[in-house]
Amino acid sequence: MQITKFKRLPKHIGIIPDGNRRWAVSHNKEKHEGYNYGIAPGFELYNLCLKHGIKELTFYGFTQDNTKRPAIQTKAFQKACVDAVMKLANRDANLLVIGNHTSPLFPKELLPFANKRVRFGKGLININFLVNYGWKWDLSTNASKNIPRIDLIIRWGGRRRLSGFLPIQSVYADFYIIDDFWPDFKENHLYEALSWYQTQDITLGG
Amino acid sequence: MQITKFKRLPKHIGIIPDGNRRWAVSHNKEKHEGYNYGIAPGFELYNLCLKHGIKELTFYGFTQDNTKRPAIQTKAFQKACVDAVMKLANRDANLLVIGNHTSPLFPKELLPFANKRVRFGKGLININFLVNYGWKWDLSTNASKNIPRIDLIIRWGGRRRLSGFLPIQSVYADFYIIDDFWPDFKENHLYEALSWYQTQDITLGG
Repeated sequence: MQITKFKRLPKHIGIIPDGNRRWAVSHNKEKHEGYNYGIAPGFELYNLCLKHGIKELTFYGFTQDNTKRPAIQTKAFQKACVDAVMKLANRDANLLVIGNHTSPLFPKELLPFANKRVRFGKGLININFLVNYGWKWDLSTNASKNIPRIDLIIRWGGRRRLSGFLPIQSVYADFYIIDDFWPDFKENHLYEALSWYQTQDITLGG
Repeated sequence: MQITKFKRLPKHIGIIPDGNRRWAVSHNKEKHEGYNYGIAPGFELYNLCLKHGIKELTFYGFTQDNTKRPAIQTKAFQKACVDAVMKLANRDANLLVIGNHTSPLFPKELLPFANKRVRFGKGLININFLVNYGWKWDLSTNASKNIPRIDLIIRWGGRRRLSGFLPIQSVYADFYIIDDFWPDFKENHLYEALSWYQTQDITLGG
Protein backbone atom coordinates (compact mmCIF):
# COMPACT_ATOMS: atom_id res chain seq x y z
CA MET A 1 0.00 0.00 0.00
CA GLN A 2 1.21 3.46 -0.96
CA ILE A 3 1.25 5.89 1.99
CA THR A 4 0.38 9.42 0.94
CA LYS A 5 2.16 12.19 2.83
CA PHE A 6 -0.18 14.79 4.29
CA LYS A 7 1.11 18.22 5.23
CA ARG A 8 -1.05 18.34 8.36
CA LEU A 9 -2.73 15.40 10.07
CA PRO A 10 -5.41 15.41 12.74
CA LYS A 11 -4.11 14.18 16.09
CA HIS A 12 -7.49 12.82 17.11
CA ILE A 13 -10.21 11.55 14.77
CA GLY A 14 -13.80 10.87 15.78
CA ILE A 15 -15.51 8.05 13.88
CA ILE A 16 -19.30 7.84 13.47
CA PRO A 17 -19.76 4.48 11.74
CA ASP A 18 -23.36 4.93 10.63
CA GLY A 19 -25.43 3.05 8.08
CA ASN A 20 -25.09 -0.56 9.23
CA ARG A 21 -28.86 -1.18 9.17
CA ARG A 22 -29.38 0.55 5.83
CA TRP A 23 -26.49 -1.48 4.41
CA ALA A 24 -28.12 -4.70 5.67
CA VAL A 25 -31.47 -3.82 4.09
CA SER A 26 -29.76 -2.97 0.80
CA HIS A 27 -28.15 -6.44 0.89
CA ASN A 28 -31.42 -8.29 1.57
CA LYS A 29 -30.50 -8.95 5.18
CA GLU A 30 -32.34 -8.20 8.41
CA LYS A 31 -31.44 -4.81 9.89
CA HIS A 32 -29.75 -6.27 12.96
CA GLU A 33 -27.41 -8.34 10.80
CA GLY A 34 -25.66 -5.18 9.62
CA TYR A 35 -23.75 -4.51 12.83
CA ASN A 36 -21.52 -7.55 12.53
CA TYR A 37 -20.34 -6.24 9.15
CA GLY A 38 -19.12 -3.10 10.88
CA ILE A 39 -16.27 -4.80 12.77
CA ALA A 40 -13.85 -5.54 9.93
CA PRO A 41 -14.01 -1.93 8.61
CA GLY A 42 -12.99 -0.70 12.07
CA PHE A 43 -9.82 -2.78 11.90
CA GLU A 44 -9.06 -1.66 8.35
CA LEU A 45 -9.32 1.92 9.57
CA TYR A 46 -7.21 1.12 12.64
CA ASN A 47 -4.44 -0.32 10.44
CA LEU A 48 -4.45 2.70 8.13
CA CYS A 49 -4.38 5.15 11.04
CA LEU A 50 -1.42 3.31 12.58
CA LYS A 51 0.45 3.56 9.28
CA HIS A 52 -0.25 7.29 9.04
CA GLY A 53 0.74 7.95 12.63
CA ILE A 54 -2.68 9.08 13.89
CA LYS A 55 -2.40 9.21 17.69
CA GLU A 56 -6.00 8.80 18.80
CA LEU A 57 -9.33 7.51 17.48
CA THR A 58 -12.73 7.67 19.15
CA PHE A 59 -15.39 5.29 17.82
CA TYR A 60 -19.10 5.81 18.41
CA GLY A 61 -20.26 2.36 19.57
CA PHE A 62 -23.82 2.77 20.80
CA THR A 63 -25.78 5.27 22.86
CA GLN A 64 -28.37 5.07 25.58
CA ASP A 65 -30.85 6.38 22.98
CA ASN A 66 -29.94 3.54 20.59
CA THR A 67 -31.03 0.96 23.18
CA LYS A 68 -34.65 2.03 22.61
CA ARG A 69 -34.45 0.09 19.33
CA PRO A 70 -35.91 -3.43 19.02
CA ALA A 71 -34.19 -5.93 21.35
CA ILE A 72 -32.79 -7.99 18.49
CA GLN A 73 -30.95 -4.89 17.22
CA THR A 74 -29.78 -3.85 20.68
CA LYS A 75 -28.35 -7.33 21.28
CA ALA A 76 -26.65 -7.28 17.90
CA PHE A 77 -24.86 -3.96 18.41
CA GLN A 78 -23.89 -4.88 21.97
CA LYS A 79 -22.35 -8.11 20.64
CA ALA A 80 -20.55 -6.27 17.84
CA CYS A 81 -18.97 -3.92 20.41
CA VAL A 82 -17.81 -6.85 22.57
CA ASP A 83 -16.43 -8.72 19.55
CA ALA A 84 -14.55 -5.62 18.40
CA VAL A 85 -12.87 -5.16 21.78
CA MET A 86 -11.92 -8.85 22.03
CA LYS A 87 -10.30 -8.58 18.61
CA LEU A 88 -8.53 -5.34 19.55
CA ALA A 89 -7.07 -7.08 22.63
CA ASN A 90 -4.74 -8.92 20.21
CA ARG A 91 -3.48 -5.69 18.64
CA ASP A 92 -1.43 -2.71 19.84
CA ALA A 93 -3.63 -0.05 21.40
CA ASN A 94 -4.53 1.74 24.61
CA LEU A 95 -8.27 1.21 25.01
CA LEU A 96 -10.64 3.42 26.99
CA VAL A 97 -14.34 2.49 27.03
CA ILE A 98 -16.65 5.35 28.06
CA GLY A 99 -20.29 4.72 28.90
CA ASN A 100 -22.69 4.15 31.73
CA HIS A 101 -21.38 0.82 33.03
CA THR A 102 -23.76 0.75 35.99
CA SER A 103 -26.64 -0.03 33.59
CA PRO A 104 -27.56 -3.60 32.54
CA LEU A 105 -27.36 -2.31 28.95
CA PHE A 106 -23.59 -2.03 29.29
CA PRO A 107 -22.07 -5.37 28.15
CA LYS A 108 -20.52 -7.05 31.20
CA GLU A 109 -17.61 -8.33 29.09
CA LEU A 110 -16.47 -4.72 28.72
CA LEU A 111 -16.47 -3.87 32.44
CA PRO A 112 -12.68 -4.36 32.74
CA PHE A 113 -12.18 -1.51 30.23
CA ALA A 114 -14.84 0.89 31.53
CA ASN A 115 -13.56 4.34 32.38
CA LYS A 116 -9.93 3.30 32.64
CA ARG A 117 -7.36 3.00 29.90
CA VAL A 118 -6.01 -0.52 29.33
CA ARG A 119 -2.91 -1.23 27.27
CA PHE A 120 -2.93 -3.98 24.62
CA GLY A 121 0.39 -5.09 23.11
CA LYS A 122 2.66 -2.18 22.27
CA GLY A 123 -0.08 0.41 22.88
CA LEU A 124 0.65 2.19 19.60
CA ILE A 125 -2.54 4.29 19.42
CA ASN A 126 -5.22 5.49 21.83
CA ILE A 127 -8.62 4.04 21.00
CA ASN A 128 -11.68 5.40 22.79
CA PHE A 129 -14.91 3.50 22.42
CA LEU A 130 -18.29 4.98 23.40
CA VAL A 131 -20.48 2.15 24.69
CA ASN A 132 -23.88 2.86 26.24
CA TYR A 133 -22.86 6.51 26.01
CA GLY A 134 -25.22 9.45 26.46
CA TRP A 135 -24.39 13.11 25.95
CA LYS A 136 -26.58 14.24 28.86
CA TRP A 137 -25.08 11.58 31.08
CA ASP A 138 -21.61 12.67 29.99
CA LEU A 139 -22.23 16.37 30.64
CA SER A 140 -23.66 15.65 34.08
CA THR A 141 -20.91 13.20 35.15
CA ASN A 142 -17.93 14.61 33.19
CA ALA A 143 -17.34 10.99 32.14
CA SER A 144 -15.30 11.82 29.05
CA LYS A 145 -12.88 14.15 30.84
CA ASN A 146 -9.91 12.01 29.73
CA ILE A 147 -10.80 12.22 26.04
CA PRO A 148 -9.08 15.23 24.41
CA ARG A 149 -10.38 17.65 21.79
CA ILE A 150 -11.27 16.08 18.42
CA ASP A 151 -9.75 17.59 15.28
CA LEU A 152 -11.71 15.74 12.61
CA ILE A 153 -14.97 13.81 12.74
CA ILE A 154 -15.71 11.40 9.88
CA ARG A 155 -19.27 10.18 9.60
CA TRP A 156 -20.34 7.41 7.27
CA GLY A 157 -23.89 6.94 5.97
CA GLY A 158 -24.59 10.44 4.71
CA ARG A 159 -26.22 12.04 7.76
CA ARG A 160 -24.81 15.46 8.61
CA ARG A 161 -25.19 15.60 12.37
CA LEU A 162 -23.37 14.74 15.58
CA SER A 163 -26.19 12.64 17.10
CA GLY A 164 -24.89 13.41 20.57
CA PHE A 165 -21.27 12.45 19.86
CA LEU A 166 -18.99 13.98 22.55
CA PRO A 167 -20.40 17.53 22.51
CA ILE A 168 -17.48 19.07 24.42
CA GLN A 169 -14.67 17.45 22.42
CA SER A 170 -16.48 18.26 19.14
CA VAL A 171 -16.84 22.04 19.54
CA TYR A 172 -14.00 22.88 17.14
CA ALA A 173 -13.93 19.64 15.11
CA ASP A 174 -14.12 19.66 11.33
CA PHE A 175 -16.81 17.35 9.92
CA TYR A 176 -16.34 15.15 6.91
CA ILE A 177 -19.34 13.20 5.64
CA ILE A 178 -19.09 10.03 3.57
CA ASP A 179 -22.26 8.97 1.81
CA ASP A 180 -21.36 5.27 1.68
CA PHE A 181 -22.54 3.09 4.54
CA TRP A 182 -19.96 2.07 7.15
CA PRO A 183 -19.79 -1.62 6.13
CA ASP A 184 -18.70 -0.37 2.69
CA PHE A 185 -15.61 1.34 4.19
CA LYS A 186 -12.80 1.84 1.68
CA GLU A 187 -9.24 3.01 2.21
CA ASN A 188 -10.03 5.91 -0.05
CA HIS A 189 -12.63 7.28 2.37
CA LEU A 190 -9.91 8.02 4.91
CA TYR A 191 -7.68 9.58 2.23
CA GLU A 192 -10.49 11.83 1.04
CA ALA A 193 -11.12 12.98 4.60
CA LEU A 194 -7.43 13.56 5.38
CA SER A 195 -6.87 15.33 2.05
CA TRP A 196 -9.75 17.66 2.81
CA TYR A 197 -8.69 18.19 6.42
CA GLN A 198 -5.21 19.41 5.51
CA THR A 199 -6.74 22.26 3.48
CA GLN A 200 -8.82 23.59 6.39
CA ASP A 201 -7.80 26.72 8.25
CA ILE A 202 -7.84 25.91 11.98
CA THR A 203 -8.43 29.02 14.09
CA LEU A 204 -10.16 27.78 17.28
CA GLY A 205 -12.24 30.96 17.10
CA GLY A 206 -9.26 33.36 17.14
CA MET B 1 -41.80 36.41 -4.29
CA GLN B 2 -42.86 32.83 -4.82
CA ILE B 3 -43.12 30.85 -1.56
CA THR B 4 -42.19 27.20 -1.99
CA LYS B 5 -44.12 24.74 0.16
CA PHE B 6 -41.92 22.40 2.17
CA LYS B 7 -43.31 19.15 3.53
CA ARG B 8 -41.37 19.51 6.79
CA LEU B 9 -39.79 22.68 8.15
CA PRO B 10 -37.31 23.10 10.98
CA LYS B 11 -38.84 24.82 14.00
CA HIS B 12 -35.55 26.34 15.05
CA ILE B 13 -32.66 27.25 12.75
CA GLY B 14 -29.13 28.11 13.91
CA ILE B 15 -27.27 30.60 11.73
CA ILE B 16 -23.46 30.75 11.57
CA PRO B 17 -22.86 33.81 9.38
CA ASP B 18 -19.19 33.23 8.61
CA GLY B 19 -16.92 34.69 5.94
CA ASN B 20 -17.32 38.45 6.53
CA ARG B 21 -13.56 39.06 6.64
CA ARG B 22 -12.82 36.84 3.66
CA TRP B 23 -15.57 38.63 1.75
CA ALA B 24 -14.01 42.00 2.61
CA VAL B 25 -10.56 40.90 1.44
CA SER B 26 -12.03 39.55 -1.80
CA HIS B 27 -13.63 42.97 -2.36
CA ASN B 28 -10.41 44.93 -1.73
CA LYS B 29 -11.59 46.12 1.66
CA GLU B 30 -9.99 45.89 5.08
CA LYS B 31 -11.01 42.76 6.98
CA HIS B 32 -12.91 44.65 9.68
CA GLU B 33 -15.08 46.36 7.06
CA GLY B 34 -16.76 43.07 6.25
CA TYR B 35 -18.90 42.87 9.38
CA ASN B 36 -21.07 45.84 8.44
CA TYR B 37 -22.02 44.03 5.23
CA GLY B 38 -23.39 41.17 7.33
CA ILE B 39 -26.33 43.14 8.72
CA ALA B 40 -28.55 43.42 5.63
CA PRO B 41 -28.33 39.65 4.90
CA GLY B 42 -29.60 38.96 8.42
CA PHE B 43 -32.74 40.97 7.71
CA GLU B 44 -33.25 39.33 4.32
CA LEU B 45 -33.10 35.98 6.10
CA TYR B 46 -35.42 37.22 8.85
CA ASN B 47 -38.01 38.29 6.26
CA LEU B 48 -37.85 34.95 4.45
CA CYS B 49 -38.17 32.99 7.68
CA LEU B 50 -41.20 35.03 8.71
CA LYS B 51 -42.81 34.25 5.35
CA HIS B 52 -42.14 30.52 5.73
CA GLY B 53 -43.39 30.43 9.31
CA ILE B 54 -40.09 29.51 10.97
CA LYS B 55 -40.65 29.96 14.71
CA GLU B 56 -37.13 30.55 16.00
CA LEU B 57 -33.70 31.65 14.75
CA THR B 58 -30.43 31.77 16.67
CA PHE B 59 -27.66 33.93 15.18
CA TYR B 60 -24.01 33.53 16.11
CA GLY B 61 -22.92 37.11 16.81
CA PHE B 62 -19.46 36.92 18.35
CA THR B 63 -17.67 34.77 20.89
CA GLN B 64 -15.28 35.39 23.73
CA ASP B 65 -12.62 33.70 21.54
CA ASN B 66 -13.34 36.13 18.70
CA THR B 67 -12.43 39.09 20.93
CA LYS B 68 -8.78 37.97 20.81
CA ARG B 69 -8.73 39.36 17.26
CA PRO B 70 -7.24 42.82 16.51
CA ALA B 71 -9.09 45.63 18.32
CA ILE B 72 -10.28 47.22 15.08
CA GLN B 73 -12.04 43.95 14.17
CA THR B 74 -13.46 43.46 17.65
CA LYS B 75 -14.91 46.98 17.60
CA ALA B 76 -16.36 46.40 14.15
CA PHE B 77 -18.22 43.18 15.05
CA GLN B 78 -19.43 44.63 18.34
CA LYS B 79 -20.84 47.61 16.43
CA ALA B 80 -22.46 45.36 13.81
CA CYS B 81 -24.24 43.43 16.59
CA VAL B 82 -25.51 46.64 18.19
CA ASP B 83 -26.66 48.03 14.82
CA ALA B 84 -28.48 44.79 14.02
CA VAL B 85 -30.39 44.85 17.30
CA MET B 86 -31.33 48.53 16.92
CA LYS B 87 -32.70 47.74 13.48
CA LEU B 88 -34.57 44.68 14.77
CA ALA B 89 -36.22 46.85 17.43
CA ASN B 90 -38.36 48.27 14.61
CA ARG B 91 -39.54 44.84 13.46
CA ASP B 92 -41.68 42.06 14.96
CA ALA B 93 -39.63 39.70 17.05
CA ASN B 94 -38.96 38.41 20.55
CA LEU B 95 -35.27 39.02 21.14
CA LEU B 96 -33.06 37.16 23.61
CA VAL B 97 -29.37 38.09 23.76
CA ILE B 98 -27.16 35.43 25.38
CA GLY B 99 -23.58 36.20 26.38
CA ASN B 100 -21.37 37.21 29.26
CA HIS B 101 -22.75 40.69 29.90
CA THR B 102 -20.59 41.22 32.99
CA SER B 103 -17.55 41.63 30.72
CA PRO B 104 -16.53 45.01 29.21
CA LEU B 105 -16.49 43.18 25.85
CA PHE B 106 -20.28 42.95 25.96
CA PRO B 107 -21.68 46.06 24.21
CA LYS B 108 -23.44 48.18 26.84
CA GLU B 109 -26.18 49.14 24.35
CA LEU B 110 -27.32 45.49 24.47
CA LEU B 111 -27.57 45.22 28.27
CA PRO B 112 -31.38 45.73 28.21
CA PHE B 113 -31.71 42.50 26.15
CA ALA B 114 -29.17 40.36 28.00
CA ASN B 115 -30.52 37.06 29.26
CA LYS B 116 -34.16 38.13 29.11
CA ARG B 117 -36.52 37.99 26.16
CA VAL B 118 -37.82 41.38 24.97
CA ARG B 119 -40.75 41.75 22.61
CA PHE B 120 -40.53 44.06 19.60
CA GLY B 121 -43.73 44.93 17.71
CA LYS B 122 -45.94 41.88 17.15
CA GLY B 123 -43.25 39.44 18.33
CA LEU B 124 -43.77 37.15 15.31
CA ILE B 125 -40.59 35.10 15.69
CA ASN B 126 -38.10 34.27 18.43
CA ILE B 127 -34.65 35.61 17.65
CA ASN B 128 -31.74 34.55 19.84
CA PHE B 129 -28.47 36.40 19.42
CA LEU B 130 -25.19 35.11 20.85
CA VAL B 131 -23.07 38.10 21.85
CA ASN B 132 -19.79 37.65 23.71
CA TYR B 133 -20.82 34.02 23.99
CA GLY B 134 -18.52 31.20 25.03
CA TRP B 135 -19.32 27.49 25.01
CA LYS B 136 -17.37 26.82 28.23
CA TRP B 137 -19.00 29.79 29.90
CA ASP B 138 -22.40 28.51 28.73
CA LEU B 139 -21.84 24.96 29.98
CA SER B 140 -20.67 26.21 33.38
CA THR B 141 -23.48 28.76 33.86
CA ASN B 142 -26.31 27.07 31.93
CA ALA B 143 -26.80 30.48 30.30
CA SER B 144 -28.63 29.18 27.24
CA LYS B 145 -31.18 27.13 29.18
CA ASN B 146 -34.04 29.07 27.54
CA ILE B 147 -32.88 28.29 24.01
CA PRO B 148 -34.49 25.06 22.73
CA ARG B 149 -33.02 22.28 20.61
CA ILE B 150 -31.88 23.32 17.13
CA ASP B 151 -33.17 21.35 14.13
CA LEU B 152 -31.02 22.80 11.35
CA ILE B 153 -27.77 24.74 11.44
CA ILE B 154 -26.80 26.67 8.32
CA ARG B 155 -23.23 27.86 8.11
CA TRP B 156 -21.97 30.25 5.45
CA GLY B 157 -18.33 30.55 4.36
CA GLY B 158 -17.58 26.87 3.70
CA ARG B 159 -16.20 25.77 7.06
CA ARG B 160 -17.67 22.50 8.33
CA ARG B 161 -17.55 22.96 12.08
CA LEU B 162 -19.59 24.27 14.98
CA SER B 163 -16.90 26.61 16.36
CA GLY B 164 -18.44 26.37 19.82
CA PHE B 165 -22.00 27.18 18.70
CA LEU B 166 -24.47 26.07 21.43
CA PRO B 167 -23.08 22.56 22.04
CA ILE B 168 -26.14 21.33 23.94
CA GLN B 169 -28.78 22.60 21.51
CA SER B 170 -26.75 21.30 18.54
CA VAL B 171 -26.44 17.64 19.54
CA TYR B 172 -29.10 16.44 17.08
CA ALA B 173 -29.01 19.32 14.58
CA ASP B 174 -28.56 18.71 10.87
CA PHE B 175 -25.76 20.80 9.33
CA TYR B 176 -25.98 22.51 5.98
CA ILE B 177 -22.90 24.27 4.67
CA ILE B 178 -22.97 27.08 2.12
CA ASP B 179 -19.68 27.89 0.46
CA ASP B 180 -20.55 31.52 -0.30
CA PHE B 181 -19.55 34.11 2.27
CA TRP B 182 -22.31 35.49 4.49
CA PRO B 183 -22.39 39.00 2.92
CA ASP B 184 -23.23 37.22 -0.37
CA PHE B 185 -26.42 35.75 1.15
CA LYS B 186 -29.06 34.86 -1.45
CA GLU B 187 -32.65 33.78 -1.00
CA ASN B 188 -31.71 30.56 -2.74
CA HIS B 189 -29.31 29.58 0.06
CA LEU B 190 -32.21 29.23 2.47
CA TYR B 191 -34.25 27.29 -0.08
CA GLU B 192 -31.39 24.88 -0.72
CA ALA B 193 -31.01 24.29 2.99
CA LEU B 194 -34.75 23.82 3.59
CA SER B 195 -35.08 21.56 0.55
CA TRP B 196 -32.27 19.37 1.85
CA TYR B 197 -33.60 19.39 5.41
CA GLN B 198 -37.02 18.04 4.45
CA THR B 199 -35.36 14.92 2.99
CA GLN B 200 -33.51 14.06 6.23
CA ASP B 201 -34.68 11.26 8.46
CA ILE B 202 -34.88 12.62 12.01
CA THR B 203 -34.47 9.88 14.61
CA LEU B 204 -32.96 11.59 17.69
CA GLY B 205 -30.88 8.44 18.16
CA GLY B 206 -33.86 6.03 18.35
